[in-house]
Amino acid sequence: MRQRTSSDLLASARAGEISAIARLLTCVESGDAAFRPMLDAIYAAAGRAHVVGITGVPGSGKSTLVAALTAKIRGTGRKVAIIAIDPSSPYSGGAILGDRVRMHALADDPGVFVRSMATRGALGGLSRGTLEAVDVFDAAGYEVVLIETVGVGQDEIDVARAAHTTVVVSAPGLGDDVQAIKAGVLEIADIHVVSKVDRPDAGRTIAELHAMLSLGPKPTRQAGWDVPVIGTSSEADVGIDELMQAIDRHWQSTHQSGDILVRRSQINERRLLKAAEEIVRDRFARQQDGMLSELLARLDARATSPRTAAGELLKAIRIESET
Amino acid sequence: MRQRTSSDLLASARAGEISAIARLLTCVESGDAAFRPMLDAIYAAAGRAHVVGITGVPGSGKSTLVAALTAKIRGTGRKVAIIAIDPSSPYSGGAILGDRVRMHALADDPGVFVRSMATRGALGGLSRGTLEAVDVFDAAGYEVVLIETVGVGQDEIDVARAAHTTVVVSAPGLGDDVQAIKAGVLEIADIHVVSKVDRPDAGRTIAELHAMLSLGPKPTRQAGWDVPVIGTSSEADVGIDELMQAIDRHWQSTHQSGDILVRRSQINERRLLKAAEEIVRDRFARQQDGMLSELLARLDARATSPRTAAGELLKAIRIESET
Repeated sequence: MRQRTSSDLLASARAGEISAIARLLTCVESGDAAFRPMLDAIYAAAGRAHVVGITGVPGSGKSTLVAALTAKIRGTGRKVAIIAIDPSSPYSGGAILGDRVRMHALADDPGVFVRSMATRGALGGLSRGTLEAVDVFDAAGYEVVLIETVGVGQDEIDVARAAHTTVVVSAPGLGDDVQAIKAGVLEIADIHVVSKVDRPDAGRTIAELHAMLSLGPKPTRQAGWDVPVIGTSSEADVGIDELMQAIDRHWQSTHQSGDILVRRSQINERRLLKAAEEIVRDRFARQQDGMLSELLARLDARATSPRTAAGELLKAIRIESET
Repeated sequence: MRQRTSSDLLASARAGEISAIARLLTCVESGDAAFRPMLDAIYAAAGRAHVVGITGVPGSGKSTLVAALTAKIRGTGRKVAIIAIDPSSPYSGGAILGDRVRMHALADDPGVFVRSMATRGALGGLSRGTLEAVDVFDAAGYEVVLIETVGVGQDEIDVARAAHTTVVVSAPGLGDDVQAIKAGVLEIADIHVVSKVDRPDAGRTIAELHAMLSLGPKPTRQAGWDVPVIGTSSEADVGIDELMQAIDRHWQSTHQSGDILVRRSQINERRLLKAAEEIVRDRFARQQDGMLSELLARLDARATSPRTAAGELLKAIRIESET
């Protein structure tokens, strides 16, 4: 019965029915075990979309770039889904930043679907359901899924591990300290963008990125791919075409080298392990009032250590019998 | 037998025998299940030390500050342990940064123990055993344990959740973008330090922090504690006394308000859940060649979804029978 409903929804979503897509998204985001058959059906129908992660520090002009890039990709006839995880993103309903006009143009285009999603914690990681949402768009026939996230904390690493192509956006005029931070995340980029390229100090930022790329350890993520550094101006439409072409070229390159198969397997392995961890965490949460508080009392009294208590907890929640 | 050995080691550690402390650290860091009884004994003997987290972006002068602060605390007769999680920290054997002389002075002091520990991933989280290492120092009679970590990614959040007092170090001259990043971690600070206060732009950074503290949501972490902003210069010995006094005052304040009990419980709950997650993850890792690869093959073929596969995996690894 439910299986039938999910195929209906999926068929309607593929036919471009926006309400069906929205309903599927709500289902996968709920995390309800009752929707497992639907998740299986969605996952089975997915596997064609190009998932592109776009990350950068606040103020790097990421959201405006995503809007400009989306318009370009739409120009080639492909459908684009945007998942905005950046809490400061202009899509999130509250404050509207960036240029209103372009956002409105996107909002009126039935070939663009924008979904805002919460981050899991203050700074931490993709929320439950983000990758299932990618599957929904993929299964519904969106050729490109852009995941926009703020370049702070765990999000950008998670996005890089979930995406087929990762774009890191920098803005000119960032100080030395920020460059040092960037050094830590340099290796996740398949493509570097320096936004606001019309600013006088943009050339220096581009030169610094080139220098860091040539000095640092060669990214082992994909052999035979030279990470490009692209200067863009979303307002003046500079470099956006070039960025789209680089993204498409990277996609082709991963297919030619066979790297796409490795990436897909890595993504699947991570998703499997994260899903299992989530099930365990849920089981813990439901344990709150019973054994957990008893164990905590013993910990507070230092009658047992956290690891020994953890072993007892796992024994007690009987993972195996309920999943 | 092992129980006996661990009490011997613990007694020697408490008597100040460095090699015994080092051996205990090696045991807890190994994560070997055979050392569980020892973990229980160490944990039972701990619970007195003041755990202070010190975090800040690279280039904020954190390591030099830790050295100067350690010297001050030693001046009051207390023993100090330093756990350095910052990969760029001068203690890590490789490059020696900061002022060599002060580091050497610390190295010759038997009341100071420095332990470098790896971060878990590129940017992510405290490594296994970090909090068990805190227990070792605590049980061995170190009154203050300083955890130094770099202010990027998950580390600083983890440290704030593991420490009784969290110090966030900023340096003057950081741009607007860095301030925006900082906004996200503002709430974890019990004490703010602006290092390099002899620089002309330090006053502006201090003023900005005060402004952010007064504008932002009131930190709910502890009622009745006003987060101070302290300007320091490690070289000129400015503000280090004041910082030590603020740290001590915060410790007393958490005891007077009863907040320390809440914090200890929160730390224990987090440790319990993380330990349980680690056990599950270990079990996964050992599953690598068997069922996991079979499940991955089915995922790659899209014959099942990650969540359904995760349920099967948890059933198969029979968490309950082996812990």
